[in-house]
Amino acid sequence: MDKREVAPLANAYRLLNPGCVVLISVGDGTRDNLFAVTWNMPAKKEPGMCAFLSSKGHHSYPFIVDTREFAINIVAADLAPALYGCGTVSGRDEPDKWQRFALNREAGTQIAVPVVAEAVANLECRVNQMVDLGSSSLIIGEILAARADRQHFDDNGWRFDKGLRLLHHLGGKRFCVSGEELTVR
Amino acid sequence: MDKREVAPLANAYRLLNPGCVVLISVGDGTRDNLFAVTWNMPAKKEPGMCAFLSSKGHHSYPFIVDTREFAINIVAADLAPALYGCGTVSGRDEPDKWQRFALNREAGTQIAVPVVAEAVANLECRVNQMVDLGSSSLIIGEILAARADRQHFDDNGWRFDKGLRLLHHLGGKRFCVSGEELTVR
Repeated sequence: MDKREVAPLANAYRLLNPGCVVLISVGDGTRDNLFAVTWNMPAKKEPGMCAFLSSKGHHSYPFIVDTREFAINIVAADLAPALYGCGTVSGRDEPDKWQRFALNREAGTQIAVPVVAEAVANLECRVNQMVDLGSSSLIIGEILAARADRQHFDDNGWRFDKGLRLLHHLGGKRFCVSGEELTVR
Repeated sequence: MDKREVAPLANAYRLLNPGCVVLISVGDGTRDNLFAVTWNMPAKKEPGMCAFLSSKGHHSYPFIVDTREFAINIVAADLAPALYGCGTVSGRDEPDKWQRFALNREAGTQIAVPVVAEAVANLECRVNQMVDLGSSSLIIGEILAARADRQHFDDNGWRFDKGLRLLHHLGGKRFCVSGEELTVR
């Protein structure tokens, strides 16, 4: 895949605009993990921020608290089985979900967390604040770097003329796919 | 449209799962307004919570601060022009966006805010907390009631076999549409 830096970085929120389910990667330089997150959104244009929900009981949660780093990886519809697998198998039981679900690590450029090579976009983030919601936390991160597939994302956002199919979560094993653009006049 | 209550209410988060752009309605019993929000997500299953971003400068922002109530209205792709209109015209300049964009008010059941009759789903919410992000606020609301089109939403979530086309925002006048289900094995 041929990815390029999203520039200006203030455009990175457009990666998250359509509300896709994402894979979040965490790591401390020695161990790492991957998990699926439906509940995510952009939170600010400049500096670019994003927000997502994590249960405090998740295997990945202490990584986020300790390292204050995470990456958001946006996968297209062909990776739905891998995403679903990463969302249903715990890192407690499977220390290497990457290998199990045939995903490859790429080094982050701004953080020590690896990103998913097969994702159509990667956003490298540092925790800005965490909002306590009882059993879960709403995590707000600053976007430090973003890369996206040159074929499917340009300065205006995602484009669908080269066959991109984005993935949205309905619930459980059910997803829906967006692959058609609609422009209002 | 034939809507039914989402029951149990703990399923209401599934309305927001796919990451659609929504119309938010606010009102104080005398005046009201409608605005489009791309940056929204579920935040908790039970009690049901949702979160969205609002600029503090928006005409609707004081309504939310004062009444602590809002409704999320999910519109299908055929209402993209009305949604875009509500998102680009300020309530300062147009006191009745409903009339201007041919939308009808329905009374809320739990809040004083009207909901959009033409939306495929309506969620009535009360502010739980607001997180200060400088020029904007992240607003977390508890979902007090939810109704959805009987044809397009059931206990498992959205269904697409009756022609539902959901709307996701790319940026500016550009949207994408999801209308195809994908189930992993």
